[in-house]
Amino acid sequence: MVKLLALYKQPENKESFNDHYYNVHTPLAKKMPGLEKVEVTEIFGAPTGESDYHLLAELYFKDKETLMSSMNSPEGKAAAKDLMGFAGPLVTMMFGKVVEN
Amino acid sequence: MVKLLALYKQPENKESFNDHYYNVHTPLAKKMPGLEKVEVTEIFGAPTGESDYHLLAELYFKDKETLMSSMNSPEGKAAAKDLMGFAGPLVTMMFGKVVEN
Repeated sequence: MVKLLALYKQPENKESFNDHYYNVHTPLAKKMPGLEKVEVTEIFGAPTGESDYHLLAELYFKDKETLMSSMNSPEGKAAAKDLMGFAGPLVTMMFGKVVEN
Repeated sequence: MVKLLALYKQPENKESFNDHYYNVHTPLAKKMPGLEKVEVTEIFGAPTGESDYHLLAELYFKDKETLMSSMNSPEGKAAAKDLMGFAGPLVTMMFGKVVEN
């Protein structure tokens, strides 16, 4: 299993960020072909107190090929375009492979 | 469900990092009381090419109280001490709450 990770820094306006994230971006992201599972985590702190981060989204796909092909699909491109529009400077994207642990 | 997230930047020496991570740190972290699930993700890239990050560890607990109490336990402190020793400058720790998605 692989996943696409989107880690968002604290936005200036949390309310308008969350509104766009849950009501506009999430529905677009969920249309990505081959998407098997989504896990969204709201960051509420850190051992040192406040965290620089606000949210982590994890989108699971069967394998790397499925992930890459999904990102290149029209639905993947629509989600990426929306992402860049509302959170471009806030988001760090990563590709990851879930390993035995 | 809440989780403790540990996001590691690329180490200078991946081989020695992984050796310590899997053979020393993981067994210590797995002793933390109340730990229900661990997911380890090896970062293999980003849409822009290389990622600044190497690994994400996610440790799941029932709720925030269980997580905090686990971090304050002797086992939690032993894992934290080991972490600071081998990856202090590389790791970003976060507390997160898994939300409906």
